[in-house]
Amino acid sequence: MADVAHKLANGATRIDFQTDPARYKHWKLSVDGDVATLTLDVDENGGLFEGYQLKMNSYDLGVDIELADAIERLRFEHPGVKVVLLRSGKDRIFCAGANIRMLAGSAHAHKVNFCKFTNETRNGMEDSSENSGQSFICVASGATAGGGYELALAADHIILVDDGSSSVSLPEVPLLAVLPGTGGLTRVSDKRKVRRDHADVFCTIEEGIKGKRAVQWRLVDELVPASRLDETVKARAKERAAKSTRKADGEGIRLTPLGRAFRDNGISYGFVTVEIDRARRTATITLKGADQAPPADVAALGGLGAAFWPLQLARELDDAILELRNNEFEIGTLIFKSEGEAARVAAHDAFLEANKAHWLVNEIRHYWKRVLKRVDVTSRTIVTVIEPGSCFAGTLAELVFAADRSYMLIGSLEGDNRPPAALTLTRANFGPYPMCHGLTRLQSRFLGEPDSVGRAEVRIGEAIEAEEADKLGLVTFALDDIDWADELRVFLEERTSFSPDALTGMEANLRFGGPETMESKIFARLTAWQNWIFQRPNAVGEEGALRRYGSGVRPSYDLRRV
Amino acid sequence: MADVAHKLANGATRIDFQTDPARYKHWKLSVDGDVATLTLDVDENGGLFEGYQLKMNSYDLGVDIELADAIERLRFEHPGVKVVLLRSGKDRIFCAGANIRMLAGSAHAHKVNFCKFTNETRNGMEDSSENSGQSFICVASGATAGGGYELALAADHIILVDDGSSSVSLPEVPLLAVLPGTGGLTRVSDKRKVRRDHADVFCTIEEGIKGKRAVQWRLVDELVPASRLDETVKARAKERAAKSTRKADGEGIRLTPLGRAFRDNGISYGFVTVEIDRARRTATITLKGADQAPPADVAALGGLGAAFWPLQLARELDDAILELRNNEFEIGTLIFKSEGEAARVAAHDAFLEANKAHWLVNEIRHYWKRVLKRVDVTSRTIVTVIEPGSCFAGTLAELVFAADRSYMLIGSLEGDNRPPAALTLTRANFGPYPMCHGLTRLQSRFLGEPDSVGRAEVRIGEAIEAEEADKLGLVTFALDDIDWADELRVFLEERTSFSPDALTGMEANLRFGGPETMESKIFARLTAWQNWIFQRPNAVGEEGALRRYGSGVRPSYDLRRV
Repeated sequence: MADVAHKLANGATRIDFQTDPARYKHWKLSVDGDVATLTLDVDENGGLFEGYQLKMNSYDLGVDIELADAIERLRFEHPGVKVVLLRSGKDRIFCAGANIRMLAGSAHAHKVNFCKFTNETRNGMEDSSENSGQSFICVASGATAGGGYELALAADHIILVDDGSSSVSLPEVPLLAVLPGTGGLTRVSDKRKVRRDHADVFCTIEEGIKGKRAVQWRLVDELVPASRLDETVKARAKERAAKSTRKADGEGIRLTPLGRAFRDNGISYGFVTVEIDRARRTATITLKGADQAPPADVAALGGLGAAFWPLQLARELDDAILELRNNEFEIGTLIFKSEGEAARVAAHDAFLEANKAHWLVNEIRHYWKRVLKRVDVTSRTIVTVIEPGSCFAGTLAELVFAADRSYMLIGSLEGDNRPPAALTLTRANFGPYPMCHGLTRLQSRFLGEPDSVGRAEVRIGEAIEAEEADKLGLVTFALDDIDWADELRVFLEERTSFSPDALTGMEANLRFGGPETMESKIFARLTAWQNWIFQRPNAVGEEGALRRYGSGVRPSYDLRRV
Repeated sequence: MADVAHKLANGATRIDFQTDPARYKHWKLSVDGDVATLTLDVDENGGLFEGYQLKMNSYDLGVDIELADAIERLRFEHPGVKVVLLRSGKDRIFCAGANIRMLAGSAHAHKVNFCKFTNETRNGMEDSSENSGQSFICVASGATAGGGYELALAADHIILVDDGSSSVSLPEVPLLAVLPGTGGLTRVSDKRKVRRDHADVFCTIEEGIKGKRAVQWRLVDELVPASRLDETVKARAKERAAKSTRKADGEGIRLTPLGRAFRDNGISYGFVTVEIDRARRTATITLKGADQAPPADVAALGGLGAAFWPLQLARELDDAILELRNNEFEIGTLIFKSEGEAARVAAHDAFLEANKAHWLVNEIRHYWKRVLKRVDVTSRTIVTVIEPGSCFAGTLAELVFAADRSYMLIGSLEGDNRPPAALTLTRANFGPYPMCHGLTRLQSRFLGEPDSVGRAEVRIGEAIEAEEADKLGLVTFALDDIDWADELRVFLEERTSFSPDALTGMEANLRFGGPETMESKIFARLTAWQNWIFQRPNAVGEEGALRRYGSGVRPSYDLRRV
């Protein structure tokens, strides 16, 4: 089975997740009053990797990095925008979905991480609609196929053009022998609640469905003749803008470029440092606490802009996670550490909590929520280490609860006269950052002893030292000086000796006990099935559908059902 | 990757799911008053396939077929039993789990179906506890490892012997580079609600956990010294028996051997016929309606025994599904048909509904529920065809709603003067047979239009013809004489042309819209991850952990995280 990655285009050596509208190759972002338009007009020759052209508005990860950037900028830079139109810049095609040649030539790990990122972007659109009052209208003009329809599915309202040829489709199963990889099956069944037999028919019709049946089967929301398209889109945008909860009461802030320095074995940001140990296959991600107290009032926020500590830290952490996920496949374990004053971290949490009704504070908190969710679904072992000098308080303490396990030092190490490590809880640990299955990390941790959540809550604000944290169930291991270094070393060595695949599967199962939501089903159920299918010879083998696509030769399948 | 199956032992050509206690090789079933004991004492040389020995009470599908048989017999043949003890017949080992050499040498499809069946058996134990008042106590004496601990997890109460060596463990990840395949991860997190970091530690310790920590981490319910073991087991059994809801008010009925005749291309049972078309890769399963009216009252039931139509039909259907699943991997589509009088089928539903408080009727209805669940998780396309002469009423109509799609004929075919096909709803379609995610098949079908459930419910008892059934949303396609044969032919041909893997993944996603339960998480989430891992070279490749196990050579892993 082919597991050789395409070469990155233009001599690039890593995938970069930072961009801005001036550099977009594939999307155009325009704003007119309270309506923004995101126009997809893919540059065929602008692929992220060599070896394929992005024909028919098909996309690769590079296209989606721009979309993700635009979605974030709409929230932070455009507080006045209440409705976002998703449109095609090409005739007779909305979007043909993920590029097939890109998929056929990608390493398994790239395919999986590509799907994960596109899923996160679409979840981000729904989060924007739900929590920022920016709702999405998709104008499906022309073929809206595969990932193209999955993009439409992330919108609140899908308008299909009634021109005899515009259609929606999920042709992955009949055409490519894979599944729709960006939530398509789950959104068809759980968001749009298409009847399961209709869904079965829909997902096996290569050419898709057009006209009235698409509305009857709830695949789209309305059907509009081309002659009335523009007026209808305008009317729908106006209606949605009128109902938006968006508070257009301030200037946006610029998401300025992140300051980053790449080293052979790490990355340095302003508040985040990544140190890679290739022998141990670990990356240590150290988060620095705030360098100053939060501003006196929310009016000062605009002046700080993207340099406001919680926002800058979140953006840097997000970038670091994406860098490691997509450029460092052999790094199996992420070790979170922190440095700084817990009191200042807690003070920032208090500031955010006190001003949560303010649009920018609201955006920052939801941004943190999304970054932490990204950590949760990262398929690397996560361990958080709490030592003297660390500042795991509130928002940062979520990284203790997001970890597969945590180690906390009792007292101090020999020769270190800093006070013992402490963990501090704030209100941020009890609500604003739910995981993708709807529970807070503490609720999820204490599924079997729900009273422990309350026992932790009454300790908000206290500096909780190791033995007490252990007693409260907040850390996995509290260890003293004598055991500390050995235990950590043995753990990391042992972890490195296990099969990366088995760890990925195990962690994906253990991290999300309890309830499920559409979002968690996408990551847990659909993703796992897709990963399976992405390994099957029927899809990726020499005679499989992905490899044979476009060759004129039909795929040859192993006919056994599993 | 090795995908060649072991040869079946003793010259057998198919896996048989029918057995009885007199033929058990691996389990002993004994009954003493209201307490039954199931003793696992595996015959090393009694493996289902050639090429391995079942050492250390490890199991293969053959061992689990006996367990599944015993669980059913306890419910039907032993109404007086209120508590079932699971014990080992060997010293110092409870059960070492699924046999590793068996796994290493099995075809992918066999491994997956093996895990599916063992999952269904363990779900059946929990169903027995919940709905039949037969609760399970597992006595974990000695090593209780992997599938052995997963068996324990299916029990209501786990007693771990405190002898310095008895332990529970899930060593799959560190030892074999696979996941616990029989619900272990899900039951640890969702049933026993073990804290996620404790679960992470537990699932990566090859030697497992013994003593007090096993209780503290909720991995077992109590720790008992060997000297007090027997008295404690007796006391727990007595306590549980006293609380049981089991109604010991009748004689059991014998689950007599099924009458079956195997042909090259099919199987004939009393009320079920299977016709295999190898060219089209379909199996048509025809269910015959009742040959007589239900008895006048419940007192007559004992006399009918296993020949009572609903019970015999359910047992035959269950066996047919298992036969096809495990012996006919290339049959991609199951076509359900029925023949008989709908009124008689409905009359049996009415009889069951009226007498549902009777222990045997209760058992029969829960048995149907389990058989229908088995259909739901069968990884073959399911299509139900409703023609003149069919009797899809109530319980049988569930096979219309379990199907990926259904076809119903409008009117009659030329030359057939039987009345047009009709569908009949009964109370059985509105409650007693929930799917594994907790919804009825009609609720699941109508997720997007819940009022349609009510619209169907008021039509209970009517003979609903095709166009009306279509209007009510009960069938996928209502077709007349002109289109009928062509549409069905094209559908079956097209389905056969698709990748079996992609269809499996698609159907698994579309069949279970809406909520999730522990059971559905086991089949949807854990199974999908396990299927993925069962394909990965790190597990099953020449240098993978499963293949290298016991060779003295360490596995060599692809270190990339996916």
